[in-house]
Amino acid sequence: MKKKYLLTPGPTPLPPEVMSALSRPIIHHRTAEYGEVFGEVNKGLKYLFQTAEDVFMFASSGTGAMEASVVNLLSPKDKVIAVEAGKFGERWLELCNTFGLDVIPVHVQWGKSVAPSLIEKLLKENPTTKAVFVTLCETSTGVTTDVKAIAAVTAKTNAVVVVDAISGLGAMELKTDEWGVDVVVSGSQKGMMLPPGLGFISLSKKAQKMMETSKLPKYYFNLKAYKKALEKLDTPYTPAIGLTVALKEALKLLQDEGLENVLKRHAVMAEATRQAVKALGLEVFASPSSDTVTAVKLPEGMDGGKLYKTMKNDLGVQAADGQGNLKGKILRFAHLGYMDASDVILGISALEVALWKIGYPVKMGEGVKAAQKVLYQV
Amino acid sequence: MKKKYLLTPGPTPLPPEVMSALSRPIIHHRTAEYGEVFGEVNKGLKYLFQTAEDVFMFASSGTGAMEASVVNLLSPKDKVIAVEAGKFGERWLELCNTFGLDVIPVHVQWGKSVAPSLIEKLLKENPTTKAVFVTLCETSTGVTTDVKAIAAVTAKTNAVVVVDAISGLGAMELKTDEWGVDVVVSGSQKGMMLPPGLGFISLSKKAQKMMETSKLPKYYFNLKAYKKALEKLDTPYTPAIGLTVALKEALKLLQDEGLENVLKRHAVMAEATRQAVKALGLEVFASPSSDTVTAVKLPEGMDGGKLYKTMKNDLGVQAADGQGNLKGKILRFAHLGYMDASDVILGISALEVALWKIGYPVKMGEGVKAAQKVLYQV
Repeated sequence: MKKKYLLTPGPTPLPPEVMSALSRPIIHHRTAEYGEVFGEVNKGLKYLFQTAEDVFMFASSGTGAMEASVVNLLSPKDKVIAVEAGKFGERWLELCNTFGLDVIPVHVQWGKSVAPSLIEKLLKENPTTKAVFVTLCETSTGVTTDVKAIAAVTAKTNAVVVVDAISGLGAMELKTDEWGVDVVVSGSQKGMMLPPGLGFISLSKKAQKMMETSKLPKYYFNLKAYKKALEKLDTPYTPAIGLTVALKEALKLLQDEGLENVLKRHAVMAEATRQAVKALGLEVFASPSSDTVTAVKLPEGMDGGKLYKTMKNDLGVQAADGQGNLKGKILRFAHLGYMDASDVILGISALEVALWKIGYPVKMGEGVKAAQKVLYQV
Repeated sequence: MKKKYLLTPGPTPLPPEVMSALSRPIIHHRTAEYGEVFGEVNKGLKYLFQTAEDVFMFASSGTGAMEASVVNLLSPKDKVIAVEAGKFGERWLELCNTFGLDVIPVHVQWGKSVAPSLIEKLLKENPTTKAVFVTLCETSTGVTTDVKAIAAVTAKTNAVVVVDAISGLGAMELKTDEWGVDVVVSGSQKGMMLPPGLGFISLSKKAQKMMETSKLPKYYFNLKAYKKALEKLDTPYTPAIGLTVALKEALKLLQDEGLENVLKRHAVMAEATRQAVKALGLEVFASPSSDTVTAVKLPEGMDGGKLYKTMKNDLGVQAADGQGNLKGKILRFAHLGYMDASDVILGISALEVALWKIGYPVKMGEGVKAAQKVLYQV
């Protein structure tokens, strides 16, 4: 018997309440029974997204919701700024290029974050800019973006700010309405503690107004159709019923814990992980590092793939390897969704043991001790 | 205690094997464990779609896969023929118009099916036509299209035939490769016995070639990206892991029963339903009527909504009301997916009782008797 622990930044583990809801008999989506679920879900989503506006839901991955933000707001050749500081920022660039936008790319060194002052400067130089695309937590590096500051900048312009909060939502602060964040995109398999398969998008009044003049073609992701359907508590196409039923349970868990406590839990897990990494003589890759995922920079010459596999296969703990150029060079620990202090402890312990197994001179227990200090104030 | 029976043409009931698979802990999609599932699923899909080509899978509803067929094959202003004989044919028209195609609409009386000779005539008159969009089973009316004959027509031209087989696949014969059907689109919540949330598409070599020159913008549904990823048993974006794991179980059930037997089971259930409807002095709405869903034409003046609600609320049996103009005028019984002879019996019995409850002069038991005759050869 070997238990398995998933410490990846998506998918994340499922709470028992969610697993159990997923195994219920299917119900039809055009019934009062589903309407009640959908109504509850809509309320819960507004709570989680911290917005009074509607949150729309697609049967899609988070990337589908990213596409929805592009095709519903913009028209061909519209000028946009897209920030790329990792693999998921690249996705914004690819999307904007695919749909024929006039893209100002902002390439940031992987592991670093864009300076809000640079966005301010670019918006001044390009006053016709319609949208700024950023990533709350760049899952590939663990870096976080100062969305609050960027939203304060865009608020003074005609541009909207569009935030990929796929891995950030429910893990890090994102005061959508209060900060003036126009568009928030997310997915189900991260802080929402569900399997992948649902994409989400919220839009400020400013973004909703921009939708009115958008000329890019869209059908499946056409938000006007979703908005019209939502007025009758319906969806234009068959929704992912099973996932939505489970989402109601997940949102209840988040509401019962309270968003403030949820975010605090993530912040403490992340800080404990960062302290543990330092105590082991290693470095955190990203700066500023998110509360969602911590990327450990591996020492020059270490076989990161071997470390990853040793943890997964010998110790049952699955962290995430680096992506793209970072493959084998970093190891990422998620503290995201259905995870708590014990997940941090077992993750750091597995890191220590795996380092020892691959011959790295590690001081056993030092990482765990540093984590305990943060987690339990001992 | 009142048991509930779902006899709707999507979503359809879930087999226990599927429900149980849905409640398993989530696994990461970039692991050998998921690779094994995905590999099995790909094999099973080829079996179900009766094709040697790859079948691609999206986290989306069936409509997403319909959009994928349009945006991956065509370029703006391409000439296409779209057949509309109901609500789902309308979707083809809407999609083709949304993406700026030069559409020849073929409107067919609801309940009737397009004549393959009409397609042949239109293709002769419009030799630059790139694609013909049809619906195997038009769920809104229950009518079926002669896809085999239409594919024989398109095979002699440069046009591809694109079949919405969302509710037809796994219920009615569709020999994709043998008949030369270029594109087959489907969804998970019908014959595949899963919750909604997966969209599918298969492409013939002719369709794959057309993909090479397609200029419509696409990102989330870009099949070239899926094709490239599939070579490494991967997907470009996070797949709907939980549904895919359950799909493996559903495909195993279909393979264990054998597709031929699966289709025979559907044909017998449909014939039993049609005979029962006639025995009750009522008419089947569609001609030719599919083996997926049977629409009962309700007598002039009957309150169809009341009949539907009586069945659902008093008797626990949920059939489907009419859609659009047919609301209240027809009642649709699915024989689709995880259903067998007993579902037909309890459905027809509930129809008889509900008819009696709303005051229609029904000969109790006559419908059931006619169904028994077909189902059990008694």
